[in-house]
Amino acid sequence: MSAPETRILHFQNDYSWEGVEHEPYKYGQEAGRAWQAIVRQVLIGNQAEETGFHLRYFEIAPNGYSSLEKHGHAHVVIVMRGHGRAVVGTTAHELQPFDTVYVAPWTPHQFLAVGNEPFGFFCIVDAERDRPQLVSAEERGGALTAGAIVAVDLE
Amino acid sequence: MSAPETRILHFQNDYSWEGVEHEPYKYGQEAGRAWQAIVRQVLIGNQAEETGFHLRYFEIAPNGYSSLEKHGHAHVVIVMRGHGRAVVGTTAHELQPFDTVYVAPWTPHQFLAVGNEPFGFFCIVDAERDRPQLVSAEERGGALTAGAIVAVDLE
Repeated sequence: MSAPETRILHFQNDYSWEGVEHEPYKYGQEAGRAWQAIVRQVLIGNQAEETGFHLRYFEIAPNGYSSLEKHGHAHVVIVMRGHGRAVVGTTAHELQPFDTVYVAPWTPHQFLAVGNEPFGFFCIVDAERDRPQLVSAEERGGALTAGAIVAVDLE
Repeated sequence: MSAPETRILHFQNDYSWEGVEHEPYKYGQEAGRAWQAIVRQVLIGNQAEETGFHLRYFEIAPNGYSSLEKHGHAHVVIVMRGHGRAVVGTTAHELQPFDTVYVAPWTPHQFLAVGNEPFGFFCIVDAERDRPQLVSAEERGGALTAGAIVAVDLE
């Protein structure tokens, strides 16, 4: 894929961007990770852009949440819509539009929608990054005290 | 400087973020580059964050503009407030909130505020990047046809 030209991604009123694909909502759990009612749009990162980072927009439906996870790369999150909660380590932070979060490497974290509106945010990450990992039992316990929602092991 | 912990940068209603410094407005010209009425806040990038990118918020006052310049690194811009115009190469693009721009490497570009409200946007760049350069006479001519404002050489 050759490097792209300059382009404008025009915002549309339903929190989508012209020409950017909506990846389907994820529900359920897999290998110990749980998530619910999330959609992703990759604005920058899948067109061979010449950046060392990717820009994605996530939207979590009411009552939805991302998986509780950790990884060696940092996250930068910019809240764009609605209200949410970030569980980071053993602490919960309430989030409102345009609040910006730096999640340090290896910190267990989860994002949850709060209220009746979708919770939307940009997430910027390094283009080269490791895969998310399960948190330890101790980390999971700490996150639970802060209000995290975790996968139930049915085995 | 040691790597920072997770932190929340709370948005304040005047388009500032708690604990983030406002760098002063720039006016005037220097070495052939002109800019007017711009303020910058570095949200991510000057605290030894473990990211390969920096996140900055720029705000251009009414009638203000950034310098017409080019460089080898790409820009990603997310409009947050007001209306603006991006002159990119020989083309002008009108910009509204949440429009997102990818400026390819070595493309001459300038951002101008349109209307009575400040024009605010995030700009994400690689942490390691080259310095902006002057555009060529030909590039300057092309940008002028698209509405760029350029430094007047008084010599």
